[in-house]
Amino acid sequence: MDITNIVGMIAALLTTISFVPQALKTIRTKHTGDLSLNMYIALNTGVALWFVYGLIQNAMPIILANSITFCFTFTILVMIIKYRDKPSAK
Amino acid sequence: MDITNIVGMIAALLTTISFVPQALKTIRTKHTGDLSLNMYIALNTGVALWFVYGLIQNAMPIILANSITFCFTFTILVMIIKYRDKPSAK
Repeated sequence: MDITNIVGMIAALLTTISFVPQALKTIRTKHTGDLSLNMYIALNTGVALWFVYGLIQNAMPIILANSITFCFTFTILVMIIKYRDKPSAK
Repeated sequence: MDITNIVGMIAALLTTISFVPQALKTIRTKHTGDLSLNMYIALNTGVALWFVYGLIQNAMPIILANSITFCFTFTILVMIIKYRDKPSAK
């Protein structure tokens, strides 16, 4: 495997799993006051469109990466909406 | 322009600009207690690698999208580190 594919795979892995710590923190603390609702609305829409793009192109890496990312970004979005009125972390 | 390119461009636009509202909120409130430091470390590293991937592939859309995204995700990372001890939004 050449350097380009290695760089691309590590980049895809990092940008996909990067939302895991935020999802876990949000689930644990239930504090979402500092998170931007607009960010996660735009991000979820964008990730969903990348998933559609992957389906049209029949590109498994794009389908896989974005379906995994969507699980975490959508979880965070639901938590933001659910715990919007709860005071944030001290 | 065919539907695939339109879907891809909107997806790229949304996932790129999605970090703008979070960066603005963080700059305005200086509250970062609910944000995950680990998320933004992984995300910045991943976006930077996507940028390198774009350079190697000489792919302007990937270079452009990720350099813009990096400006916002790096700003958020700096704010998280700088205001880590400040109590969060009430």
